[in-house]
Amino acid sequence: MILIIKKDRQQKQFDNLVDFVKGLGLNVHLSEGENTTILGLVGDTSKVDIDLIGSLEIVESVKRVSEPYKKASRKFHPADTVITAGSHKIGGKNFTIIAGPCSVESEKQIISIAKSVKSAGAGFLRGGAFKPRTSPYAFQGMREDGLPLLLKAKKETGMPIVTEIMSAAHLDLFKDIDVIQVGARNMQNFELLKELGKTDKPILLKRGLANTIEEWLMSAEYIMAEGNPNVILCERGIRTFEHYTRNTLDLSAIPLVKELTHLPVIVDPSHASGLSRLVHPLSMASAGVGSDGLIIEVHNDPKNAKCDGAQCITPDSFEILVKKLDVILPLVSKSRN
Amino acid sequence: MILIIKKDRQQKQFDNLVDFVKGLGLNVHLSEGENTTILGLVGDTSKVDIDLIGSLEIVESVKRVSEPYKKASRKFHPADTVITAGSHKIGGKNFTIIAGPCSVESEKQIISIAKSVKSAGAGFLRGGAFKPRTSPYAFQGMREDGLPLLLKAKKETGMPIVTEIMSAAHLDLFKDIDVIQVGARNMQNFELLKELGKTDKPILLKRGLANTIEEWLMSAEYIMAEGNPNVILCERGIRTFEHYTRNTLDLSAIPLVKELTHLPVIVDPSHASGLSRLVHPLSMASAGVGSDGLIIEVHNDPKNAKCDGAQCITPDSFEILVKKLDVILPLVSKSRN
Amino acid sequence: MILIIKKDRQQKQFDNLVDFVKGLGLNVHLSEGENTTILGLVGDTSKVDIDLIGSLEIVESVKRVSEPYKKASRKFHPADTVITAGSHKIGGKNFTIIAGPCSVESEKQIISIAKSVKSAGAGFLRGGAFKPRTSPYAFQGMREDGLPLLLKAKKETGMPIVTEIMSAAHLDLFKDIDVIQVGARNMQNFELLKELGKTDKPILLKRGLANTIEEWLMSAEYIMAEGNPNVILCERGIRTFEHYTRNTLDLSAIPLVKELTHLPVIVDPSHASGLSRLVHPLSMASAGVGSDGLIIEVHNDPKNAKCDGAQCITPDSFEILVKKLDVILPLVSKSRN
Amino acid sequence: MILIIKKDRQQKQFDNLVDFVKGLGLNVHLSEGENTTILGLVGDTSKVDIDLIGSLEIVESVKRVSEPYKKASRKFHPADTVITAGSHKIGGKNFTIIAGPCSVESEKQIISIAKSVKSAGAGFLRGGAFKPRTSPYAFQGMREDGLPLLLKAKKETGMPIVTEIMSAAHLDLFKDIDVIQVGARNMQNFELLKELGKTDKPILLKRGLANTIEEWLMSAEYIMAEGNPNVILCERGIRTFEHYTRNTLDLSAIPLVKELTHLPVIVDPSHASGLSRLVHPLSMASAGVGSDGLIIEVHNDPKNAKCDGAQCITPDSFEILVKKLDVILPLVSKSRN
Repeated sequence: MILIIKKDRQQKQFDNLVDFVKGLGLNVHLSEGENTTILGLVGDTSKVDIDLIGSLEIVESVKRVSEPYKKASRKFHPADTVITAGSHKIGGKNFTIIAGPCSVESEKQIISIAKSVKSAGAGFLRGGAFKPRTSPYAFQGMREDGLPLLLKAKKETGMPIVTEIMSAAHLDLFKDIDVIQVGARNMQNFELLKELGKTDKPILLKRGLANTIEEWLMSAEYIMAEGNPNVILCERGIRTFEHYTRNTLDLSAIPLVKELTHLPVIVDPSHASGLSRLVHPLSMASAGVGSDGLIIEVHNDPKNAKCDGAQCITPDSFEILVKKLDVILPLVSKSRN
Repeated sequence: MILIIKKDRQQKQFDNLVDFVKGLGLNVHLSEGENTTILGLVGDTSKVDIDLIGSLEIVESVKRVSEPYKKASRKFHPADTVITAGSHKIGGKNFTIIAGPCSVESEKQIISIAKSVKSAGAGFLRGGAFKPRTSPYAFQGMREDGLPLLLKAKKETGMPIVTEIMSAAHLDLFKDIDVIQVGARNMQNFELLKELGKTDKPILLKRGLANTIEEWLMSAEYIMAEGNPNVILCERGIRTFEHYTRNTLDLSAIPLVKELTHLPVIVDPSHASGLSRLVHPLSMASAGVGSDGLIIEVHNDPKNAKCDGAQCITPDSFEILVKKLDVILPLVSKSRN
Repeated sequence: MILIIKKDRQQKQFDNLVDFVKGLGLNVHLSEGENTTILGLVGDTSKVDIDLIGSLEIVESVKRVSEPYKKASRKFHPADTVITAGSHKIGGKNFTIIAGPCSVESEKQIISIAKSVKSAGAGFLRGGAFKPRTSPYAFQGMREDGLPLLLKAKKETGMPIVTEIMSAAHLDLFKDIDVIQVGARNMQNFELLKELGKTDKPILLKRGLANTIEEWLMSAEYIMAEGNPNVILCERGIRTFEHYTRNTLDLSAIPLVKELTHLPVIVDPSHASGLSRLVHPLSMASAGVGSDGLIIEVHNDPKNAKCDGAQCITPDSFEILVKKLDVILPLVSKSRN
Repeated sequence: MILIIKKDRQQKQFDNLVDFVKGLGLNVHLSEGENTTILGLVGDTSKVDIDLIGSLEIVESVKRVSEPYKKASRKFHPADTVITAGSHKIGGKNFTIIAGPCSVESEKQIISIAKSVKSAGAGFLRGGAFKPRTSPYAFQGMREDGLPLLLKAKKETGMPIVTEIMSAAHLDLFKDIDVIQVGARNMQNFELLKELGKTDKPILLKRGLANTIEEWLMSAEYIMAEGNPNVILCERGIRTFEHYTRNTLDLSAIPLVKELTHLPVIVDPSHASGLSRLVHPLSMASAGVGSDGLIIEVHNDPKNAKCDGAQCITPDSFEILVKKLDVILPLVSKSRN
């Protein structure tokens, strides 16, 4: 950590600061320039309150030198993490496609869609049982009744299942689920992250609507710090001033996040835009930008879908999309898994 | 709900749409202009998927006529809600000041600060036991051990207590707490909101970092829909492109929210800016803009505070601030409670 | 334009409103529902002050039914506009690549880069003579001395030239330039737009850092309203809370803008990210999402470039990129021009 | 400027970097820690391309130690700048109120409003002649015909005039105007700023819709670098994801900007919200937060105002507001001028 010290400091204030810092178990390294004095703090600075230091009267500004995350950092784990779920792998050279309806609605629906997306090339089946909805009056999903239907579809097709958890209190219900999703709104539900960190399940961690890349990686760190290394990141759009799309898909984030972390990073083009007709172009863009996969909403009858029908594509459209992706993947040294 | 229909529609598509809408139990009201056809949907549209309708091929755009929240709406409850907690009232003509340290650190600390802020004019004592921190390696608060210390301070001073909950699993621990705070990151932790809605405790609901006013009111609605009418809203800054302050305090939101809802709305100037020297000016601005109160971090030794020392003011500074607020309050027809 | 009228309206206020609207030369169409009264305004509403109407006491909300732009709208011009500049075409099935250095630095530099990018597949040469810089102390470009060097490179290679204008006072200097660029910071420099509208030059109009799609199209409309139909739109990243990249490239905007307008839309991946290593992935993503082309910074010696060296790629890297783009373009029914 | 060097650097790359930096005329200061190497660049770093340095392979990150603005910085000019215009002063202990209509519409209108606002306590008269409008089809102001009417109102009332310029080509027309306003959309119209810097007129520089505080001060620096020290900053709301208000007034910026610069900073509550009923609360908040003044739209007949009637208050309402402000000003050690 580096502190820029104000020019007109009083020696006593400065001595107090040095004592304070040493009291935190850190060493200091002073570098006095003509116009600027720099104080380097050496040691484990992960517990130093950067805001407090920055607010001291004689400190002009502070800068962290090392990222505040460690287990998620590529610095300490240079190779790509490859996560196994069922018969599938996520990360590395693999391009993973997760597809399925927004909500599980019935056994027939979920099995039928599962078969369609599998034959078109999806590796995982997604389907929401617990649904986070902005309105308390909107359909909240089939909740605990939805999970057994997903497991039936898994039994029928062999596809591993991805579905969202909304409370640690439901964790027991997820024991046969292959990948547990944490939604954007729960990205900083730290108590939930801690509980998921105590399992060994792959966790699909969506980026919050207005969370920075660093905060996203810190939330991955919450899970990893408890012992679970299996975190898959998922970009799903951020909130900006533009309201013509539901969110702004931050594709520039993908190559940057992959520099910072060894964890796989996939993209959700369906929620990002909220518009089915944007799913093809945004999926192709996601492949071109180097993501490790996609999670796409597919419904056999979008108009009658119980939620988010506006962003679902049909199985036929999905099949065409997969063929286009297969043309792009070799350019980024990936292949569909 | 109003649908603008595309000019070059096919009659069959239009008939299908009308059938679909009627199938949802709604009546339609057609208004055909020279260049535009408008279809009004009459009835309970709160369960209509506005995004789905908007994505239909013949629909150019959709507009909700009524807000999606009801219990929180001033339309159906014109008078200000006044919430009682202990001997204090929040809302209406009252201006409520909640003060105390970011974190409870010890019995001595919390009782000492409680006495100081009470004598300076605070109505409620705040203090964090469960602390949401971006880093898993940062101090997470005294957690369950912190709550009894808050209750001792209450016993000693008579001040009602405001403190944050982070998981519905901890709800039993909060039975003697007067006001339960939901932090910005949990504003859309819907499972938590539902559980809080089953209690009768006043809930202080902070606005999420990037949540719209409508989403904030919908989260209040989640609590109210379960039967708990005692919601206090708290603006604490939103996330913008400006990084010189931690957040941008959205003071324009206060008078607007008060038009939309009958619930009290207070401001947190400490978290908004993250800078103690901004607490005075932002508190005066909050009073001037018509808020129903403030929640302010006060610490007797900011430099050694276990968290967020950068944004704490001292008890002496707090006392001066209260005197300044007392000059402004009559201009907005409020008085300190 | 649709007005939602408040439920508890007074008849006199309502009559005044109707008179006011009729005074603007509009007809009204009343639709009275159980809970809602809707007033449709029929006629040319492009001059109605929507904010004023919306602020009237009895008006709950207002909605425009037709977009405020006309010449730029695909509604009134369904076919793609194809713009010719020199021997090249932009728009339609064409994918246009504009490449060159951030700044013109010398005759040798610009001609050498021009030859490289031409042989690698670029259609247009870019190069800044007038450079908008945040700091008055930064290199402001060669200004009027830079333009003749660009024209020499044009003569040498036959490539049409794209370069930025910063003031209408410089317009005479641009008479032999093929495409005049308006930078993001000048997107709403309306006096400049009007002057450019009086020429017949193709105008490359960059989206402002925080401008909505509608505002962008309105700025195109400013140029077109004066008589110049040759507008090329360019997305170059918007400003969000994420500071890890310079801007957030809004690729979701591309397919949406192409629905709304017939004008060509290209992408600037270099300025969007400010990082040369993101140029390849973002360019591939831009092709996949259906853009009409790219404008890319290429420099033979990025480390010594006079500005923005951080975002330049080398001619060799550019050549590899073009080959990858050629694989993606058939998927979006485009070919390089 | 401080460079954090990557841990696994090659010596040759490092030597190249040091040579490169020395070639820029800077000295280097090396500080080698256990895990981190820091390179301090000493000398005039204002022309160093921070983005380029940051993109070098061996550089992990870069940090500016000194702000990139100098003339606007309080560091080099600790005392408040007080600007004189006509008989009035702006800055220091003065609280300046500028009031008047959005647009000049007629001699009668502007003189009548001028008299009203003067008697209610305004120090300056505002009124738009050149109007920046999003739509080319909207009323663009009376343009050159409006300026003489403002001067008549000045003659009649003695009030100094504030009005907006949109192009340096119009500068001659402004020779008798007291304060020239640069609108938010032109904040980074650098060619215009340079021309204004060559005059000695006070310039009211509005903050751009999505511009950081640093960029705002850099635009002030553009004017000051040309020799004109008379810059008044004006916060008028920034663009955020919240669309319920037109903009989000960034009041936290006021005390921060006043720390960074010695220039006066005022607030425009009318444009920020676009809603007349927010003008009172936001004005009181602006006074409470320590701004140096207000610029407020006042119209005698808001419903028939030619532009922005939605945000105008009446002269009567303005008079009441001034009385409330007079109660708050002593709390921030200011008085109305």
